[in-house]
Formats: sequence, structure tokens, C-alpha cells
Amino acid sequence: MERYGIIMAGGSGTRFWPLSRKSLPKQFLNLTGKDSMVNETIDRLATVIEKDHVFVVTNAAHADLTFRMTNGRLKRDHILAEPAARNTAACIGYAAMEIVKKYGDGIMGIFASDHYIKDESGFREVLERAVRTAEEGDKLVTIGIKPYFPSTGYGYIKRKSSGLLTEGTGAAEVEEFVEKPDLETAKRYLESGDYLWNSGMFIWKASVILKQFEKLLPDIYDCLLTIGESMGTEREREAIDEIYPKIPKISIDYGIMERAENVFVLEGDFGWNDVGSLDAMETLHEPDENGNVVCGENISLDVKDCVSYGESKLIAMIGVENLIVVETNDTVLVCDKSRAQDVKKIVERLETEGKDKYL
Amino acid sequence: MERYGIIMAGGSGTRFWPLSRKSLPKQFLNLTGKDSMVNETIDRLATVIEKDHVFVVTNAAHADLTFRMTNGRLKRDHILAEPAARNTAACIGYAAMEIVKKYGDGIMGIFASDHYIKDESGFREVLERAVRTAEEGDKLVTIGIKPYFPSTGYGYIKRKSSGLLTEGTGAAEVEEFVEKPDLETAKRYLESGDYLWNSGMFIWKASVILKQFEKLLPDIYDCLLTIGESMGTEREREAIDEIYPKIPKISIDYGIMERAENVFVLEGDFGWNDVGSLDAMETLHEPDENGNVVCGENISLDVKDCVSYGESKLIAMIGVENLIVVETNDTVLVCDKSRAQDVKKIVERLETEGKDKYL
Repeated sequence: MERYGIIMAGGSGTRFWPLSRKSLPKQFLNLTGKDSMVNETIDRLATVIEKDHVFVVTNAAHADLTFRMTNGRLKRDHILAEPAARNTAACIGYAAMEIVKKYGDGIMGIFASDHYIKDESGFREVLERAVRTAEEGDKLVTIGIKPYFPSTGYGYIKRKSSGLLTEGTGAAEVEEFVEKPDLETAKRYLESGDYLWNSGMFIWKASVILKQFEKLLPDIYDCLLTIGESMGTEREREAIDEIYPKIPKISIDYGIMERAENVFVLEGDFGWNDVGSLDAMETLHEPDENGNVVCGENISLDVKDCVSYGESKLIAMIGVENLIVVETNDTVLVCDKSRAQDVKKIVERLETEGKDKYL
Repeated sequence: MERYGIIMAGGSGTRFWPLSRKSLPKQFLNLTGKDSMVNETIDRLATVIEKDHVFVVTNAAHADLTFRMTNGRLKRDHILAEPAARNTAACIGYAAMEIVKKYGDGIMGIFASDHYIKDESGFREVLERAVRTAEEGDKLVTIGIKPYFPSTGYGYIKRKSSGLLTEGTGAAEVEEFVEKPDLETAKRYLESGDYLWNSGMFIWKASVILKQFEKLLPDIYDCLLTIGESMGTEREREAIDEIYPKIPKISIDYGIMERAENVFVLEGDFGWNDVGSLDAMETLHEPDENGNVVCGENISLDVKDCVSYGESKLIAMIGVENLIVVETNDTVLVCDKSRAQDVKKIVERLETEGKDKYL
């Protein structure tokens, strides 16, 4: 059975401001110094899913940018343009319909465009097993991340302790998906060993997930059917532009994963990070002996546990700790590391104040 | 008797990096948002010393820059170019000789080019009395600043408690000049009421200070005599270039003020600040209700007691306190306020590392 990669690139990435902008969301940033996040996402699928079978679903406004930035990796018609952001269920349903209608059924693996994975071959090894699990039938497969601290920022997936499927794939039956916990609960999850972080990576047959839409999200399924009927005809763009913005906004987790049966999870332990805010730079780069991560030119005196990211200027720091300093072509950000999440509040204020040039 | 203003503009201002540079020392910076420090220094003499009688002594490398930046305030031949920096005694002796030889004797008032004075008319009132004190004869007059905290960063001047000279000028005889004290001593000075900060402002007749050079610094006096003999002849530049770099390096405080008799001080209380390091920005600008001083564009969230100085970029700050953030065309500085003095260490390191473009 053919394998397809679906990369979801619809995010606005306001928490990565001022690096990320409306015109350049996080997935296009080169944060590792190697390549953009979306290109790294495509490339790391390698051996498991070939580039010719990779799709990117993105906002229509970013479709051309995606084509240019992926630099020959993607076929032009593998960039699926959403006329509006309708959350992950719509996005995945659209991609599933595209595959079924235009390429016949196939295994589809769904990935965020802006996550980091340190151990890429470890990732591919788990992904290969996930694909083989999905190939077995009508299973909904996800990759859960082995937690290494009691995070309150991620949802969790609970495995059935007796749910080991086969020696071959190591997939376990899922007992439940749970929302972001408080710290005490997160500690309990970590100790139990039954819980994994929900990374948002899903693997299944396109036909199988469409059946789930039909059963659990019939309103969305109707929209997808109408779009599907137009596919390959000259009405396709028109139908998408008309129907897609009306699809109910719901996440695949809430709409299907938490309610479906036959959900299986494989444990991943390959240095995953969702790069949710600027402090993730510490994961993407090895801190020096003072705990500092430096990208660009920097000169420091008595500086500890800081992130210094300069695009063009020398950043000089004296006597500071736990700061994130970012310099871009029009902005300097100085943020206490514990407040990295609040960058989005600055973005909101800039919006309110009409300072669009900084967005 | 004619009055002359001598503005010493020989500093390199490394503590104001990255705003100050080798090619743009502190005196040329516009830190108040009104005008450059040297222009404010010239202008505030007004009514007491007219612009036509103001001289600036500066490094030969900055002579043209001084002429341009003072924007018509100075006659070209009132810019006295030092071929080498030889400390304040040499600088003042050169200016005194220039006045005596080319303009006849006169009162000369000596001022730093890079200090700030908030109450300019208060300053002029004291200066006028200082000039009249100097006109009385062979007195060496200085203006001491009424201390308002036990500073360990300034030298002090002790008045004789019985030393009030006249009701008219309010000058007091000086008992001694003392070096920068430790904190305990500074506290004692503050309490006693007899001590004033040494601001480096001096007022005397040119002929009187030259007599002091002859008596207390005869080596320097010999150099000044040789230079003086060349003045007004075509050998003048040549003589200065040859002799001046050989003048012993000594400060006027150490060389003359601490050793001379007949020294008088007037108390000044007009919001003086020597703008010695970047934290002085708090004195030059009124902090807002959160204690922040903002120059340029800034957006902040939970920020207290910070200085934000942006030349061209938006500076965004989140959850930080007591920081100085400065953005210039090629550099960003992020410095804990208590470490503002250490900016010069960064400059030294840039020199050592050969990163001249940032100096």
C-alpha cells in the first residue's frame, strides 16, 4: 500500500515572535541552523515516506511561499491550500479525501510542520512500525512521546497496561486521551509509566479515517464529500473555497481520537520537542558551559542560562541570567525565560495597537 | 575682564558603548533628546560666557567632527586640537596659554563636555558668582556639587567651615581635595555638610593658572612656554605637534588643585550628573510610573526600573527588571543596571579580539 505524508503547516506561530511573522510563520524559520522546520520535517521522513508522496496543508496565503521555501521538495499540486484555518480535523479530512480521490487509498502519516526531533533515525524506526500497524487494518495509530518531566503543557495518552498488540510493532491499545494535567497529576502520570505525551502524530489509512469522520463527525464528513466530488474537476478550487470555510472547527484529538475505538499508540523516545516557545532554543542547540545558547554574534560577561539569537547585530550581554534576547531586522526582544509563553501577549498588543508592520 | 569658556572634549567615553564609539565619543551623543552633550554644554554657558568666547579642546582626530557637530556655535580657530591626550593639566595649560598669547588675559571657566545639568539657570547663577570670585585676584575657584547621596564614585572637596569669603559670592576657602572615599567615609562626608563633590569645573584668570603651572608643574610650564612662543607664527602647529605629546600626563586636580593655596569653592545644587555610565539615563529622563526610561519605540509587559534606548528598532521586553537595553545600528546591549560600569570591559574585550568595527 502506498504511503503518504501529510504535513500540517497552518500555524501562525505567534509565540515565536519576533522571529515568526504573519508573512513568515514558524515552520519556515531555520532555528537549528540547518534548514527550515518544514524542510527538516519533510526530510526526516526519508526511507519511510518518500518526498514525492509528501503533502503540505497550509493557509492559501502561504501556498506560494511554501512552494518556494521547500525548494523543489514538493510537487506544486501537493500543496493543499486551505482558504481558512478550520483546525486539525478539517485539515486531515481534506488530505484524506485528496488521497482517496486522486491516488486511491493509502497509509497517511500526519505530522506538524514545526516540531523538532533530535534522533531522526530513531524516529523513522518508530514511524516504520506505526505504518506497519496501520497497514494491518482499520487501526488509528499515534506515536506518543515517552515523557521525561511532568509537563503541564502537553496532553497525555494512557496505554492499556495489557494492551501490547504484537511483538513486531510494539503498538499498545490506547485506554484514553487526557487533556493537559495540573502538576500533581502530571507527576502521577510520569511515575505510572502508562502515560505518553500526545505529539499529534497520526498514522492510518485514508479510507479508515474517513470512515471515522462519517461516524463521529458527520457534518464535517458531508463537507468533505462535497469537496471530494469536485476533486479533479474544474469546480474543485471553487468548491473548496466555498465549503472549506464552513467546516466546523474542531481538533482531530477532540473530534475523533478521544472518542474512537481501535486506537493504538507506539512509544517514541527520540528527542521530540514541539518548539512551542522561544525557550525551546535550548533543546535545539547545545548550551555552552555557562548554560547559554548563542546564535549569531555575541559577547558576554557574567551571563548564565541565556538564549542570544542575533540575525545581524552583535549582541552584548553583561551580568544577566535566564534571559532570551532575540534581534531581527526590525525588533529586539528581551524576555525572562520563564515568560517565553507571553510573547504572544506582545503580539496581541501590537495587533490591538495597529502596529501591523511588526506582526 | 573678558570671559572665556574652555570645554574639555578629549574623552573616549567607552562606558557609553555601544552608543559612544571611537568615531563618536560621548560628548557628541544626544542623550537627552534635545541636543548633543557638547552643544548643551556650550549653550548653557549663555549670559555668563558668550559663544564667541568658547573654546573646545579635543583630540586632533575629532577636531573636524567637533566643528561640524557644534553647528556654527564655534569659530574654527577656537577648536584646540590636541595631537595626543595628555590629561587635564596639559589641556588646561594649553588653553590658558592660547588665551594669554592671542587674546590677552581673561577669566577662563573650564567645563567637561559630557556632563548634564538639569537646572541651567541655577548653574549660571553659581557660575556668575564663581567668575566674580576669580575676578577678585589670584584665586583658583571651583564649583563643588552639593552631595545628595554618599557617592563612592566622586572625589570630594572639603570647605573650611570658617572659610566664607564674602556674602556677595558665597565662595568658601577650600581645606582639601580628597580622593574617592569608601562608603563609610562617604557617609561621614555627607553628614558633615563640609564636603562637596568635585565636579571638575574650574574658574580662574589664565595668567593666574599659568603662574601655578610655573610654581607647581615647572616641566609642563616649560612645554607650555615653548608652545606659547610659537603661537601666532607659522611654526605653531609644528611646535604643538612636537611638544604637546611630551607633556607629562597629570590631572589638574592632582597636579595643582590638591597642592595650591588660595583655592575657593562655591556650592552648586543644580541637578548635576557626570553621565558616567548608561544608568545615568535615569537622571537625564523622567522614569515612568514603573520606573522605566524609554527612548525610541518600546512595548513592555511586566517590566520595572529598566532603560530602553532604541535607535531604529522596536524593543519588546517581558518580565524583566533593572536592565539597560540599548540598540544601535550594529549592536544590541543587554546589561544589568548594577553592572553599567562594566560596559568598558566589553569594549576592552572587543579591542583584544580585534573587533574594531564595533569600537
